[in-house]
Amino acid sequence: MAAMQTRVIKQKGKHPYTFGPGHKVLARVRPGEVVTIVTKDCFENRLNSPEDLCTQKCVFPFLNPQTGPLFVEGAKPGDTLVVKIHEIQPDRDFAVTSLIPGFGALTHGAILNPAIPEDTKIMPIRNGEVVFSERIRLPYKPFVGTIGVAPEIESINTLTPGYWGGNMDCVETCPGHEVHFPVFVDGAHFFVGDAHATQGDGEISGCAAEMPARVTVSFEVIKGKKITWPRIVSDECLMVAGSARPLEDAARIAWRELIRWMVDDYGFTEKDAYYLLGQVGQMRVGNMVDPAYTMVAKIQKKYLKP
Amino acid sequence: MAAMQTRVIKQKGKHPYTFGPGHKVLARVRPGEVVTIVTKDCFENRLNSPEDLCTQKCVFPFLNPQTGPLFVEGAKPGDTLVVKIHEIQPDRDFAVTSLIPGFGALTHGAILNPAIPEDTKIMPIRNGEVVFSERIRLPYKPFVGTIGVAPEIESINTLTPGYWGGNMDCVETCPGHEVHFPVFVDGAHFFVGDAHATQGDGEISGCAAEMPARVTVSFEVIKGKKITWPRIVSDECLMVAGSARPLEDAARIAWRELIRWMVDDYGFTEKDAYYLLGQVGQMRVGNMVDPAYTMVAKIQKKYLKP
Amino acid sequence: MAAMQTRVIKQKGKHPYTFGPGHKVLARVRPGEVVTIVTKDCFENRLNSPEDLCTQKCVFPFLNPQTGPLFVEGAKPGDTLVVKIHEIQPDRDFAVTSLIPGFGALTHGAILNPAIPEDTKIMPIRNGEVVFSERIRLPYKPFVGTIGVAPEIESINTLTPGYWGGNMDCVETCPGHEVHFPVFVDGAHFFVGDAHATQGDGEISGCAAEMPARVTVSFEVIKGKKITWPRIVSDECLMVAGSARPLEDAARIAWRELIRWMVDDYGFTEKDAYYLLGQVGQMRVGNMVDPAYTMVAKIQKKYLKP
Amino acid sequence: MAAMQTRVIKQKGKHPYTFGPGHKVLARVRPGEVVTIVTKDCFENRLNSPEDLCTQKCVFPFLNPQTGPLFVEGAKPGDTLVVKIHEIQPDRDFAVTSLIPGFGALTHGAILNPAIPEDTKIMPIRNGEVVFSERIRLPYKPFVGTIGVAPEIESINTLTPGYWGGNMDCVETCPGHEVHFPVFVDGAHFFVGDAHATQGDGEISGCAAEMPARVTVSFEVIKGKKITWPRIVSDECLMVAGSARPLEDAARIAWRELIRWMVDDYGFTEKDAYYLLGQVGQMRVGNMVDPAYTMVAKIQKKYLKP
Repeated sequence: MAAMQTRVIKQKGKHPYTFGPGHKVLARVRPGEVVTIVTKDCFENRLNSPEDLCTQKCVFPFLNPQTGPLFVEGAKPGDTLVVKIHEIQPDRDFAVTSLIPGFGALTHGAILNPAIPEDTKIMPIRNGEVVFSERIRLPYKPFVGTIGVAPEIESINTLTPGYWGGNMDCVETCPGHEVHFPVFVDGAHFFVGDAHATQGDGEISGCAAEMPARVTVSFEVIKGKKITWPRIVSDECLMVAGSARPLEDAARIAWRELIRWMVDDYGFTEKDAYYLLGQVGQMRVGNMVDPAYTMVAKIQKKYLKP
Repeated sequence: MAAMQTRVIKQKGKHPYTFGPGHKVLARVRPGEVVTIVTKDCFENRLNSPEDLCTQKCVFPFLNPQTGPLFVEGAKPGDTLVVKIHEIQPDRDFAVTSLIPGFGALTHGAILNPAIPEDTKIMPIRNGEVVFSERIRLPYKPFVGTIGVAPEIESINTLTPGYWGGNMDCVETCPGHEVHFPVFVDGAHFFVGDAHATQGDGEISGCAAEMPARVTVSFEVIKGKKITWPRIVSDECLMVAGSARPLEDAARIAWRELIRWMVDDYGFTEKDAYYLLGQVGQMRVGNMVDPAYTMVAKIQKKYLKP
Repeated sequence: MAAMQTRVIKQKGKHPYTFGPGHKVLARVRPGEVVTIVTKDCFENRLNSPEDLCTQKCVFPFLNPQTGPLFVEGAKPGDTLVVKIHEIQPDRDFAVTSLIPGFGALTHGAILNPAIPEDTKIMPIRNGEVVFSERIRLPYKPFVGTIGVAPEIESINTLTPGYWGGNMDCVETCPGHEVHFPVFVDGAHFFVGDAHATQGDGEISGCAAEMPARVTVSFEVIKGKKITWPRIVSDECLMVAGSARPLEDAARIAWRELIRWMVDDYGFTEKDAYYLLGQVGQMRVGNMVDPAYTMVAKIQKKYLKP
Repeated sequence: MAAMQTRVIKQKGKHPYTFGPGHKVLARVRPGEVVTIVTKDCFENRLNSPEDLCTQKCVFPFLNPQTGPLFVEGAKPGDTLVVKIHEIQPDRDFAVTSLIPGFGALTHGAILNPAIPEDTKIMPIRNGEVVFSERIRLPYKPFVGTIGVAPEIESINTLTPGYWGGNMDCVETCPGHEVHFPVFVDGAHFFVGDAHATQGDGEISGCAAEMPARVTVSFEVIKGKKITWPRIVSDECLMVAGSARPLEDAARIAWRELIRWMVDDYGFTEKDAYYLLGQVGQMRVGNMVDPAYTMVAKIQKKYLKP
């Protein structure tokens, strides 16, 4: 894949900071065409040393810049957009992570306690590893933290995930997987950004191993197929990513949609799907730090024999 | 292990329905002694056909009977009790699961909607598999849904998990793993029950593949080591099981205690532990149906090199 | 007031369904000028008999139409917009309420239970009362359920409340009270709609006594005063309206901002403000049915003597 | 009332720290008999100056001592116990409140932030007022923060509220109001303590104006009437107190039970009760700091005309 000749798409001018229908189209792509999208990291590549602090270098809400929107030919409201993620290459030789006051799973934005000190950590990416410290090396397992389409009438900041995708921070939006989105506007208006070299479940310290990247994808359109929340397909699993607060409501959204999928496409009764997921369903926390939390509900395809 | 001669401990008289200090000791065990504890399923073995409905055969709060308490010699308040789970054998040739009105992740107990119909499903256990249907077979992956010790002054119903363990419904309390509990009373007063032949993350339909079982365990006591929430150790991971509502608060408890563990026993700073868990920490939902939800926070031991 | 001659502002063309900066300005108003804004009800006045059902007459997300945006002369980003609500007159002789499947405090949108049947209820407004039934009359206590300004870059659907105001469904945004909003864009871009003839705390059945209305307001601008969440001032109280899920996070936002207000404008220490609110603070639930819940934190002005 | 001669009931020996069936009966009372119960404050009267800190003077879980249990003659499982609160007199000339690390609405117990400093504040009770400071006087509005009965098999710490009552910290359990509890054990086993001279909604700083008190009550038993959660009756309102987390689940419990009450005793249909509460129902936050939060749902009696 790495040697593949693909069209490279870079942002022109300012990156979008919202998922919405109002942005000028950056590029038009045909179903089946493989393109490489150049993305910035969530800090717009502004944190390059431990001295660079997020609250000094970035200004809310101008965080988490996306590249897009891409207009996918033939995608119409009521269709499903399939995004195949082929490859994610770092576009810099290090990843960065940080502690931001009032942000993260082990703090809270509306308390009276003194803040945890702000901090920035640089982690070289080297030999297929992310160098956490002299002794701790993490495997390079890239994915895109933010990916999605334009809602019909809303424009949502890029820090928030929801029915349109967005900042799900879910490790399953990675090379080899397909991500399906409902299409709300003509051309779908696809956005992507916020690549991560690796991330733990929940992204609990608030940020992953953030990096600019080259994200190689292609698109398909399933005409007339209407879905409600982002779906992910791997070789082994069907998944749905629900986003809400509290975390159990994100999970309920994901499970409810997965049952709908099993009923509509695989012939299960609701009862049997529910029973089966109770015994073999899997869950994976995307993020539990963003304005909405993301929970992925999964089932292995081998069980889809009603 | 299966052929091992171990002392078999059966309940005498009524099973306890609470984790508390007030129950008469069932047996005394020495650290290192391997014992096999005979447990009933969460329905007290009363559901044996699809016609047996939970609300007709069982009476709240007399659900989820435990076997115990076992008095562990030498365990004193302020110590840590280590429970090594060696083996879980089904004590019946089928598992049972059910849909109970108002209970489960995709319903709610305080709504005005009509209930989902009550239902009972029998699943034979055969050849290392749980027979979900003619075509769907699930691997036999047993664990105990409920396991823990007596709180200091409280007696909590066996449907609820918390700092004492209890009904965590967490797949990690399985053969090969060690479970650590804080000791609150002399002898720890250990209880176990609610074995599951298999279960999905979150136990979302409300019940797992419930079975009576023979649970083979041994105990150790770590003198003077004070922990706050149940910990689990596998060959590969350290884990903490936090229980609360909403699910993110269960997670916060688990992560906070895991950081404490990494700081106290492995020399991490809080900041480095937090950063590291943000990149490689894992989460697993125990249950999201019981009176408190359970979330397991994990880290692989290979990363414990501060 | 009723006899006052004021400029009447009606929507031209389609009503906005989002709070956002992209709408064409409907009217320009000067600080101090009293204007009467004509609003439609949340169903766009389409439910006029028990036979008119929401899911048949309305199409999501085209619900809860607003009137606006009004450009307030002199309001700049970083200022505070003060909206004085003088009067709310019904623009029809009945209010309407409804039960919508999957919406309301005693149901849930992601469950497997059968839905509560959809229903529409007409309630005449007569002699200062809302006629619930032959025997039950409710006092006419009008307020606007949705009121706010444009966010800086986002456009949020009108069913959701947040830092910009929006669908707070809070009974305190009523005649006689002042509502303060942060200004994010030039002219503030003020929107209002969704008038209610009366409503219970939390709007638990999903809808209030919905009515089209004539809403008489005037504006002031506090130059250079930056606030973070909507504030409300009555003769007796200071209030903040926080919106989030779960409800306690909405409350935390409101309390945190109220303490900031007490510290900045009244000279309290954070500790004394916290202590005092613990003894005399009041809470009022706005809504607990919308995509974000709203909680109002209050303190009576008579206690503001640090 | 103050001059009334009543039997005075004081604890003998240690106060109970749990609501449970295992405590030795302190006194037997007949329905209709007026008794005065002597209670300690939640700190067992150990904080008497700003230098007395909770974490130094008290040891968890030995907090919030109750007086009881009182055996109410004739109360049997399945009955309802009615507690009429006649009067609450301070048993000391000051109230005390405190900030306890990790406890309170604007902090969290499982975060990494430094704690808010522990603090104790003494507030004289004088001339019908609680003296917050030289200039700020709060009205003396006493109620009991903790009141309830023994569960059937559980023993729950006195910091937690639930279906048995307990630490609801709800200002409606005050003189002039009746509180109804389900009876689970023979004699009901009534406990009371944790009197407050005043308190804000939610008790957000963690503690109210805590005081030892003399609580004058009498009891009635409604034979064969089975309720599920504590109910409160004032001259003007019917109320239900639900306790859970998150706060909206506490609210759902309360509203669901209030609808049941309106249907069973006042002839409403579920639909009409739901509609009516949507328009005139009221909510009051009891606590949002304890292990379960408490929300009170209310309706004014004047509307109970189906």
